[in-house]
Amino acid sequence: MQTLFIRNVRPMGADPTSLTIRDGRIAGYGQEAGGGAEFLDTEILDAEILDAGGAILIPGLVEAHTHMDKTLLGMGWYRNEVGPRLIDKIDNERAQRRLLGIDPARQSARQAVLAASLGTTHIRTHVDVDTEVGVAGIEGVLATRERYRDLVDIELVAFPQSGMLIRPGTVELMDRALRLGAQVVGGLDPAAIDRDPKGHLDVVFGLAERHGVPVDIHLHEAAELGAFSMELIIERTRALGLQGKVTISHAFCLGMADQDSVAALIDALAEARIHILTTAPASRPAPAVKRLVEAGIVVAAGTDGVRDTWGPYNHPDMLERAVLVGLRNNLRRDDEVALALDTCTHGGARMMGLEGYGLDPGDRADLVLVEGETLADAVVGRRPRRLVLKGGRVVARDGVALVEAP
Amino acid sequence: MQTLFIRNVRPMGADPTSLTIRDGRIAGYGQEAGGGAEFLDTEILDAEILDAGGAILIPGLVEAHTHMDKTLLGMGWYRNEVGPRLIDKIDNERAQRRLLGIDPARQSARQAVLAASLGTTHIRTHVDVDTEVGVAGIEGVLATRERYRDLVDIELVAFPQSGMLIRPGTVELMDRALRLGAQVVGGLDPAAIDRDPKGHLDVVFGLAERHGVPVDIHLHEAAELGAFSMELIIERTRALGLQGKVTISHAFCLGMADQDSVAALIDALAEARIHILTTAPASRPAPAVKRLVEAGIVVAAGTDGVRDTWGPYNHPDMLERAVLVGLRNNLRRDDEVALALDTCTHGGARMMGLEGYGLDPGDRADLVLVEGETLADAVVGRRPRRLVLKGGRVVARDGVALVEAP
Repeated sequence: MQTLFIRNVRPMGADPTSLTIRDGRIAGYGQEAGGGAEFLDTEILDAEILDAGGAILIPGLVEAHTHMDKTLLGMGWYRNEVGPRLIDKIDNERAQRRLLGIDPARQSARQAVLAASLGTTHIRTHVDVDTEVGVAGIEGVLATRERYRDLVDIELVAFPQSGMLIRPGTVELMDRALRLGAQVVGGLDPAAIDRDPKGHLDVVFGLAERHGVPVDIHLHEAAELGAFSMELIIERTRALGLQGKVTISHAFCLGMADQDSVAALIDALAEARIHILTTAPASRPAPAVKRLVEAGIVVAAGTDGVRDTWGPYNHPDMLERAVLVGLRNNLRRDDEVALALDTCTHGGARMMGLEGYGLDPGDRADLVLVEGETLADAVVGRRPRRLVLKGGRVVARDGVALVEAP
Repeated sequence: MQTLFIRNVRPMGADPTSLTIRDGRIAGYGQEAGGGAEFLDTEILDAEILDAGGAILIPGLVEAHTHMDKTLLGMGWYRNEVGPRLIDKIDNERAQRRLLGIDPARQSARQAVLAASLGTTHIRTHVDVDTEVGVAGIEGVLATRERYRDLVDIELVAFPQSGMLIRPGTVELMDRALRLGAQVVGGLDPAAIDRDPKGHLDVVFGLAERHGVPVDIHLHEAAELGAFSMELIIERTRALGLQGKVTISHAFCLGMADQDSVAALIDALAEARIHILTTAPASRPAPAVKRLVEAGIVVAAGTDGVRDTWGPYNHPDMLERAVLVGLRNNLRRDDEVALALDTCTHGGARMMGLEGYGLDPGDRADLVLVEGETLADAVVGRRPRRLVLKGGRVVARDGVALVEAP
């Protein structure tokens, strides 16, 4: 692969320097075309040379929780008249999937291209597995993962959105999804949906053990109920030695009023090295990001469903998500804005166990250049990404991906 | 003033029609250039004719709560290292005003132009009055109001940000601000800041009575303390016959846990016709917009401070604010998205008592055209405004204001 030399970049808002990319990885900083000690002049002279105009360099954005198989991007506007309960949304979506003809391959491809144009280089997506769709969603998103592998890395979670134990046959489909190539086993509200917290979690962790894969469980259950389910997850994580391999998404119970219980849960999560994923929901209790990070817990951020039958608002822009994390957690100081950004970069990378993620020499050249006077300005500025690189190749420029969506 | 004829507009997302604007007001819909009953052909033929390309027509956006005198727009990035308490932010801001040289006229002009480019046609802005700045902020924003009167209507609230009773001389300055041209008397956390809820509110309502102006009080006080201050405001509103003339901004106490108290406050607010302004804060308890609207209370929305010493996130885009109102209040259905938008249009207009606001024939032609398949799509689409009209004149096009900011 050709060497790429980018002048006038500011890593995380620091002073301008140059960046050399070789074989898809960061080779080093501070070289001058035609000079410098680390590389041969000829290599720089042969390189493609870009000027970043002082843009700020950040590592590729990590979308750590979304649902690419069922976004309605590029489809006609869906008029939402859904009822207020969680089960209303789940049942409605299963019905609409047929009525609207939501094609998981096409829709996940649309979101992949849009996300890449916004600087996302890694995605963890929860893909529905149920007795109606079977593993068609998994197959569709696997096709997108393969087709767009040079654009963005996609990790699939086999996700029993409609429950497992209440819908016989789902467990076998989950097993099949993992054999097909889903890399993570998902779960969902063990008490509220499957009505059997022990049974649900035993199946989820059983699949994790059998397939040797990480776990990522949607836990919307509130307060004391969610805390009980969380305790069961912690117990199984310890018992099976899955420390560092388990994520709890949403974790609304960590926003409950009983601060003694929250403190006890945080201690136990940190000790079991369980990661927390937040979408920073404005209308629900939510985990306190800074408190979790200070306790040593990996906190990642995600968009959740993008323009789908659940709701119209979400946009897969992880800088916008950093703003929402900041707003939700009252992170106003510049160092706190950097913390909000961290949930959308390193937090997600640690949650997903990404190798070679970051801005150090040797790291993969999955990178974003965005304008801004300072790092915080780059986060809050609502500006198109100037350049997005994946594996050292330019994949988007000035907010536009270089490949077209279907 | 010349007649303006706009083809192919969709009022609130309805079927395409044409719009005729005459003398700065909406003359009618459905006319055809060269035909039609209501207007003379010659008038249409002489008119400036625009094609909206099927864009959605909404009334001008109403920014019902901001602080234009102290935004840092266009200034160097302010590195925020401020402490966590409300008083830390107030004291820091007073100090930074001098250190940074925040010019109220210049800064309010920058925000006015940016807001207009985003479709805002009316602004209520709270302008600091204190013993350090005196009425210089008021004078600066009054200059902006006059200079940009064809771009956006600006209403000034004389706002005792640093307290009144704890800073002798402030009451006299408030009085002076109202004589200079501030149209509303402001107040702030009567217990938490001035440490004298009765004393603070008696002064605020005394100024309202003496000057014959409406009242708009920042009430951040939480739960039972805020509820007590709110009761005092309701009592004075009734006693002075100020029904329909009083706004409580923020009103965090309406988000408190005690639902019986919340219900009693809502009944009393509705009976006293007190308006509620929300910024839809994600990190604080907040009024439940839908519940208030269903109780007959006028609910308006605002951005609060835009990129200032308090925090970096806020952007004066009232469609973005509608999204934040929707996210904060879990308004997912299309009819609920319309409700969120309503807080940023008619809600603000009713709060401010605007005459001739809306899309009916005879209403002032303060209008926004924005692309979208449906009204909800236009709200959530994060698209530049195609056209903004103020008093029947085009003031912004494709997201760019036709006047330059200083």
